[in-house]
Amino acid sequence: MRILVTGANGFIGRVLVQRLLTTGVLSGKPISTLILLDKELSDFPEDNRLRRSVGSVSDAALLRRILADGIDVVFHLVSVPGGAAEQHYAQGYEVNLQASLELLEQLRQQPAIPKLIYASSVAVYGPSLAGRMDETARTHPEMSYGSHKLMVEVALNDLARRGEVDGRAVRLPGIVARPRAANGLRSAFMSDLLHAFAAGEPYCCPVSPQATAWWMSARCCVDNLVHMAQVDKSALGDQHVWQLPLLHLSIAQVIDALAAVYGEHRRELITFAPDESLEALFGRFPAMSAPKARALGLRHDGSAAGLVRNALNPSARTRRAGVANYSAGDLAHETD
Amino acid sequence: MRILVTGANGFIGRVLVQRLLTTGVLSGKPISTLILLDKELSDFPEDNRLRRSVGSVSDAALLRRILADGIDVVFHLVSVPGGAAEQHYAQGYEVNLQASLELLEQLRQQPAIPKLIYASSVAVYGPSLAGRMDETARTHPEMSYGSHKLMVEVALNDLARRGEVDGRAVRLPGIVARPRAANGLRSAFMSDLLHAFAAGEPYCCPVSPQATAWWMSARCCVDNLVHMAQVDKSALGDQHVWQLPLLHLSIAQVIDALAAVYGEHRRELITFAPDESLEALFGRFPAMSAPKARALGLRHDGSAAGLVRNALNPSARTRRAGVANYSAGDLAHETD
Repeated sequence: MRILVTGANGFIGRVLVQRLLTTGVLSGKPISTLILLDKELSDFPEDNRLRRSVGSVSDAALLRRILADGIDVVFHLVSVPGGAAEQHYAQGYEVNLQASLELLEQLRQQPAIPKLIYASSVAVYGPSLAGRMDETARTHPEMSYGSHKLMVEVALNDLARRGEVDGRAVRLPGIVARPRAANGLRSAFMSDLLHAFAAGEPYCCPVSPQATAWWMSARCCVDNLVHMAQVDKSALGDQHVWQLPLLHLSIAQVIDALAAVYGEHRRELITFAPDESLEALFGRFPAMSAPKARALGLRHDGSAAGLVRNALNPSARTRRAGVANYSAGDLAHETD
Repeated sequence: MRILVTGANGFIGRVLVQRLLTTGVLSGKPISTLILLDKELSDFPEDNRLRRSVGSVSDAALLRRILADGIDVVFHLVSVPGGAAEQHYAQGYEVNLQASLELLEQLRQQPAIPKLIYASSVAVYGPSLAGRMDETARTHPEMSYGSHKLMVEVALNDLARRGEVDGRAVRLPGIVARPRAANGLRSAFMSDLLHAFAAGEPYCCPVSPQATAWWMSARCCVDNLVHMAQVDKSALGDQHVWQLPLLHLSIAQVIDALAAVYGEHRRELITFAPDESLEALFGRFPAMSAPKARALGLRHDGSAAGLVRNALNPSARTRRAGVANYSAGDLAHETD
């Protein structure tokens, strides 16, 4: 089993690579080669299954060399994030659109049909969401990022229909808790709030407590990516683009869950200075119903408590604070 | 006013070029230069406004030379048709997708914002149409042709939203009456029926009399393309992709209109040998309602009689047969 991860050095990529190395198998087959592609690759473990390819995904010749020995599964995660892609159009066009199209082209020319797990985005829906969303909602992207993600979905869907690439796109929400760094994501506040609360630092939240968003931890996201790679093709039918189930929570609900783990007294460290334009973009998400995705085995974090646990892994702290451990049942808790 | 027409040698392109030369103005401004781009260009009139560029739209350097002196309006018509694009994927990918993306890229780098009228297609909806369609219908293409058209719509919409290209996409149905030639169009029977009836030749129709389709003459199509180029930007609002109003007619209704012009006796020349797969693709179209497009001034042929007149221009024959001329009122007749 030869696997390629694009954007391997990224936030989700690193968690995915660690997971694949730990489990060592995918679809019951041992992973012989795990190829990491990214502009830089730092602090990956020494492991003779790893191959490091330092370079750009938009380097078609590099991609061709990587795929020359054949490939079974590709996790295509790399992207220029939304804010950066909007500001630097050419960069987003090159990476988010053209590199993805080139990858699809090269995959369809592989002798054996490869599996492609594509990290798409809820940005394909655009800012005007219906009062209650479901997984069949209309797409109407209004940023270049979402437009390019949608275009790649359409291309992937077409090649999957033609039977040339076993394409499986999943639409991701903002994933938490990203490292605190300038990363071009206007939704970074969602991660920053979690980190600040966990660290016991003051934090001024740029959206109101009533702001609602879609949440998912990196751990849960990787669960879904791996599941999508393993699910039987027949279960997918002719659907090649899937909306992940999403946890719909207000900032207040997330703070409640954080306070339950890290202590009520930390609430006072959080202040609010809502930015109207940011709240309009990231603070008015309706509930998302995704029964088909759930039936396929895709999952969200289950609850605000599950989100905090998965995103921040506060188990040591939790035990010290004498708070009961979360039961496995949390993950079965339905909130969507 | 400098205008470029891609696919100028094609069925719609030729009618459009003739129209532009005849009217001589667009948006009230005289047309100084009309650049024709196509793989071949034959039988265009001598006219000092015409510039002939023989070559492929996917030749980026040629495109750059064409646009070097600036451009005001582009009619982007060229495409590898549906059947051919499905069979020869690489060709459709190159022309229908990549050349269109390259054109958009070059247009967004023009110093003055150019207008782009893009001939998209009802193929973006895919084969599973709702019982009653309207202009807000969901897209779900299931051929590479429709997938690539949809991807270009999304790209155009994004650049129009960014204010970098004044993009205006219109979704065309099958246009009649195309010259009778092998052209890769599985919907060619729609044109062939009209030609055969007009010529008084026997014709075996590959769909049943009950088969319903969306119809538009080349004349009406060009009316719409020119209207779309002239309509004020403020009237478009933030909508950059438009469904044309469509005439929804059964084969039987079209034959009735043909018989009224060319004589009842010709009905016996038409036989039927329905091909189930062709009828499934092109013979079960529901009505299409497009009130917003009509409000914008876009039009269909008005009636089956109007379609036959516009598509075949049978006025000479009509007069000889003593049939009354159609009144201008025909065009206002509502059938959608």
